[in-house]
Amino acid sequence: MPELTATAGACPAIRAAIAGGAGYVGGELLRLLIGHPLVEVVAATSTRLAGRRIDTVHPNLRGLCDLTFTAPDRLGEADVLLLALPHRQTMDVLPAMLGTAKHIVDLSADFRLRDPAVYAGYYGVPHTAPDLIGAFVPGLPERHRAELKDADLISVPGCMATAGILALGPLAHLLDGPVEIDARSGSSGAGAGAGEANLHAERSGAMRVFAPTSHRHQAEITQETGLAVRMSATGVEAVRGVQLLCHGTLAAGAGEANVRQAYRRAYQDEPFVRVVAKRRGNYRFPEPKILLGSNFCDVGFAVEPQGRRIVVIAALDNLVKGAAGAAVQCLNIRLGWPERLGLEFPGLHPN
Amino acid sequence: MPELTATAGACPAIRAAIAGGAGYVGGELLRLLIGHPLVEVVAATSTRLAGRRIDTVHPNLRGLCDLTFTAPDRLGEADVLLLALPHRQTMDVLPAMLGTAKHIVDLSADFRLRDPAVYAGYYGVPHTAPDLIGAFVPGLPERHRAELKDADLISVPGCMATAGILALGPLAHLLDGPVEIDARSGSSGAGAGAGEANLHAERSGAMRVFAPTSHRHQAEITQETGLAVRMSATGVEAVRGVQLLCHGTLAAGAGEANVRQAYRRAYQDEPFVRVVAKRRGNYRFPEPKILLGSNFCDVGFAVEPQGRRIVVIAALDNLVKGAAGAAVQCLNIRLGWPERLGLEFPGLHPN
Amino acid sequence: MPELTATAGACPAIRAAIAGGAGYVGGELLRLLIGHPLVEVVAATSTRLAGRRIDTVHPNLRGLCDLTFTAPDRLGEADVLLLALPHRQTMDVLPAMLGTAKHIVDLSADFRLRDPAVYAGYYGVPHTAPDLIGAFVPGLPERHRAELKDADLISVPGCMATAGILALGPLAHLLDGPVEIDARSGSSGAGAGAGEANLHAERSGAMRVFAPTSHRHQAEITQETGLAVRMSATGVEAVRGVQLLCHGTLAAGAGEANVRQAYRRAYQDEPFVRVVAKRRGNYRFPEPKILLGSNFCDVGFAVEPQGRRIVVIAALDNLVKGAAGAAVQCLNIRLGWPERLGLEFPGLHPN
Amino acid sequence: MPELTATAGACPAIRAAIAGGAGYVGGELLRLLIGHPLVEVVAATSTRLAGRRIDTVHPNLRGLCDLTFTAPDRLGEADVLLLALPHRQTMDVLPAMLGTAKHIVDLSADFRLRDPAVYAGYYGVPHTAPDLIGAFVPGLPERHRAELKDADLISVPGCMATAGILALGPLAHLLDGPVEIDARSGSSGAGAGAGEANLHAERSGAMRVFAPTSHRHQAEITQETGLAVRMSATGVEAVRGVQLLCHGTLAAGAGEANVRQAYRRAYQDEPFVRVVAKRRGNYRFPEPKILLGSNFCDVGFAVEPQGRRIVVIAALDNLVKGAAGAAVQCLNIRLGWPERLGLEFPGLHPN
Repeated sequence: MPELTATAGACPAIRAAIAGGAGYVGGELLRLLIGHPLVEVVAATSTRLAGRRIDTVHPNLRGLCDLTFTAPDRLGEADVLLLALPHRQTMDVLPAMLGTAKHIVDLSADFRLRDPAVYAGYYGVPHTAPDLIGAFVPGLPERHRAELKDADLISVPGCMATAGILALGPLAHLLDGPVEIDARSGSSGAGAGAGEANLHAERSGAMRVFAPTSHRHQAEITQETGLAVRMSATGVEAVRGVQLLCHGTLAAGAGEANVRQAYRRAYQDEPFVRVVAKRRGNYRFPEPKILLGSNFCDVGFAVEPQGRRIVVIAALDNLVKGAAGAAVQCLNIRLGWPERLGLEFPGLHPN
Repeated sequence: MPELTATAGACPAIRAAIAGGAGYVGGELLRLLIGHPLVEVVAATSTRLAGRRIDTVHPNLRGLCDLTFTAPDRLGEADVLLLALPHRQTMDVLPAMLGTAKHIVDLSADFRLRDPAVYAGYYGVPHTAPDLIGAFVPGLPERHRAELKDADLISVPGCMATAGILALGPLAHLLDGPVEIDARSGSSGAGAGAGEANLHAERSGAMRVFAPTSHRHQAEITQETGLAVRMSATGVEAVRGVQLLCHGTLAAGAGEANVRQAYRRAYQDEPFVRVVAKRRGNYRFPEPKILLGSNFCDVGFAVEPQGRRIVVIAALDNLVKGAAGAAVQCLNIRLGWPERLGLEFPGLHPN
Repeated sequence: MPELTATAGACPAIRAAIAGGAGYVGGELLRLLIGHPLVEVVAATSTRLAGRRIDTVHPNLRGLCDLTFTAPDRLGEADVLLLALPHRQTMDVLPAMLGTAKHIVDLSADFRLRDPAVYAGYYGVPHTAPDLIGAFVPGLPERHRAELKDADLISVPGCMATAGILALGPLAHLLDGPVEIDARSGSSGAGAGAGEANLHAERSGAMRVFAPTSHRHQAEITQETGLAVRMSATGVEAVRGVQLLCHGTLAAGAGEANVRQAYRRAYQDEPFVRVVAKRRGNYRFPEPKILLGSNFCDVGFAVEPQGRRIVVIAALDNLVKGAAGAAVQCLNIRLGWPERLGLEFPGLHPN
Repeated sequence: MPELTATAGACPAIRAAIAGGAGYVGGELLRLLIGHPLVEVVAATSTRLAGRRIDTVHPNLRGLCDLTFTAPDRLGEADVLLLALPHRQTMDVLPAMLGTAKHIVDLSADFRLRDPAVYAGYYGVPHTAPDLIGAFVPGLPERHRAELKDADLISVPGCMATAGILALGPLAHLLDGPVEIDARSGSSGAGAGAGEANLHAERSGAMRVFAPTSHRHQAEITQETGLAVRMSATGVEAVRGVQLLCHGTLAAGAGEANVRQAYRRAYQDEPFVRVVAKRRGNYRFPEPKILLGSNFCDVGFAVEPQGRRIVVIAALDNLVKGAAGAAVQCLNIRLGWPERLGLEFPGLHPN
């Protein structure tokens, strides 16, 4: 087939570089930005794979991308810099990168939590760039679209945090007491460099409770919604996909109609949030399976008959709406482009 | 290979018949009883498959079983009758079967709930044999072993009920307030006659929330433990396997040590319950994957640091400890045999 | 979210109708055509679901499609009619539809085989519209692009046939003797109405040899390439995806260089065929996993060292390049549009 | 539960040690021997895990085994020594172990091939103990039972070799010309120490052609059957399980009846080989899915109507009949025990 290089589009407006291009999030950034009509990918870094073709590790990009990986220390300037580097490492290298791009989107955890002490508690190390935290706008368009329009430092929330915030945020005033979140996650969340614990033979078909009483993404949900949440996390069979079951209690007087109304207000104009709460059907509640590759976050709920108990459900693709897709959506907003641009893929049924 | 008929063992003491032998639970009863050194399977019924070889639908029994299915109306007498018939149908046919076997073990839901009104609420029909309910002993050796020793009517609990009761029962006095159970279940739970909703293309990789606020097995847990429980259920990728995450609150003053002690007291002499709560490792909490085919129920827990929140986890194979294995274990008890007989298979790692 | 109806695009040039919209191929046609910038979907038929929203059975289209299913007898005119109806049924209903659309694309098997006797041999019934067969152009752009430019009746090949033809076609002059094809297929190939044989519990993890010595798609490969081929087919775990291993013998004097050259000539300008034959890497040969949702057919090969044996490998998504994507590609050609239009999705890694 | 140590059986006759107890084959040896009524496992070595409990890496053995891993240099004497060490390493360490046990069963590849030059060709290194090769009896009871009765050095064939030999061996005289074998293998074959290539995210749902034109197990098949065979190998989704499709040609005059007769003669008295070739049903040909955990090798075939082409199919669990189960079966023969002892598990349906 004819090699379609990343530069083959129609006069892209923006030159994008990716720091950390060899991982799964980096690969999704590449996929989405190469397919974006107004972006040209100019570089993607990898320490280990510098000089090798990008499509050797991201084989889905064969024929679509002629680039090779750039050594991190040879990364030049760009209009946008997207960082898909590990937690802890990002806060060390980001300060030196501030001048290299006009817009920076970070996909690590390092600039998500406002309070460095909370960060230290969840990530086990003191924050090394606490003064920078306040300069970041959360990469969550549904709640920070206005700020994102002129944000030059954007921090994309964690995949489970995005799901939890989108599910619970509109209902915060309707809920009474703490929320127990039961989160399930596919294996890609552990990353392309995951170790023996993630061997196919060990992980296939598993229901691995890896965070029984607390998961660090819960701190982001509390920060954003004000709700007390406690999250258990289990690794399940899927490669991609996050699903949250949020067990809460409705405030006295609140009922299903209030919940529907709250969601409608919050999401009726949102391009990537769908309320899914049907009476019947295999897909009557949010199901990550059909969101594979898409930028949707589906949210739904069920209220206990004759009761105040509510179960709120959210699902998304952890590498798209939970990471790279959210980054592209933020970029579209920042640059005044249509918000869906490059994010049109609707997901597959069946798959 | 030489055909080893079901009668090839060394003078079995007991003749067993299975009503409903073509389904998944029926198949597991056949597998376990054919391998049981003191049991001879004399008949297994199927309306649809009467006259066809049993190993055509249970291909794992090839070479081990020469029987053909018996039409239900031609089922004769036996020492033990095990019923693996659908809910609702069982209560209609059971009264007429009472005389046909000395010991009856029912695996349907029809004789699990003491209160016919509760049954009607969860199963949607009035109970048609309410007078018989009280004559059944729950097929849960860990809590009813003494009664099982001379029980002639045994009702095996639901798969999620067994997991929930074994996980929560010993802790009932340590818990404060209601328990939220997040149950995950493999696809075999829907049965061999499941419809399009369970096609591979629809179910593969799914996280299908099929019972968001209430699952009928919760009634059995409450009945047995006295705890207020509310169960959400999700169908996940595995074929077999049930896992429960039970979110509860410890009573003031109770802590991890009390929980360990309660479990130790309850299960230190139990052959099929293991307490699994390690500090590290992929299998540090109960994982259905390694229980495939085994009669174990693993229970474990984690207590929130500096808190009273506890997550109790249970896992089992829904067709074995959650059904056929439990039935065989009860039979062993009833007949005074070693409790592990015919149930020695430990499960596989990896699989 | 705002409901984006199928009509929300910018003045689509073409009105498309789908006969058989509730199946898996119909669903993919809907997905691709709704996302196509120059097509407006005006109707999709279903006998069973007439009047119900399309997104109830194709949940990935929620928010993207407001249509309901049309009863087959109420299907009106359109510019393009795509048929995703069952084999045998199509040849009965197609003659009456000839006047209802300017362009007709059939995705059934009924107009693929030139010789009605061969059709009768493989499909078990005499052909009921043999006079129409000759009017169809094969929906295989890589071999029939010129004819497709003015074809008004197009018949898309079978999924395994497309893979086999694209893999073997360019090498036909280099091969000596018959080719043994070992085909593996995901579960979606059995369709949305598949029965108990395709229950998740039965099919999960299976390697089901369902056609050991002959598969009907082999007739299409022979018809198109002139090669004698015999195909075994096995159902494997994936939902989507077809992979063929073609075991052949190189003619005397032919070697790896000739094969590479033949593929280069055939495919260097093809937008949807990639030659994948690397020395190392997990994805060094065609792998259906990374083609999920994409319109690519990857072909590759390995030649036995010091020998004439060659293994040719092909992979594609059976519902896209093996069905709906090929149909859209043909439509793009027929209407003079860019061939990639609406088919840009590159597939996912990992998934 | 009460800890049942490995010594809890009724006066085992034989003390067994395992060299290489931490891998997947080592784990299966442990599972089978711990469950064997006449064997006491006295030690299992691991360099990396010496001193740690065995059930930390083989969690299915919890409650069944109290042993810790032994450092290799501290391995003492035993009645039987089973080696589950890597290829190449085994031939270096085995000579020094000859005196430490009366019976030695090797599960590596190092003593399978009679000709050291063939070994060097397939394994890439010269054989370092060529004089020992001739002393080993193949651990294939179906073809070497008589020799095994007094063999003190036994070499278990490769998993695919066992499948291929059992499928093709009885037909060697009926086949004409070379046989093309298409082998499919689950992920456990790569071992517990497999690297990033076997991460769940990479391997899940894959059809990875890892040996397109030649696989080293083919040499064992040729050695044992005299047939020229060429094997392609593909890694598929299952964790366990090997399936071979062997494409051959029947000699003139040979037909289905001859094949059936040949299999009957070969296997009518075999405890672990079943001929599976039915006219209908999901499991009409050998299917690894239902063999999980069992010691069966199922073989079947289909002959092309009006032709001489035959497809022979074999399936087994690569860690049981393809490794540890075969070792135990050989041991049973060598020690004069019933051949099925400790190998009774029939496999599961569904799973």
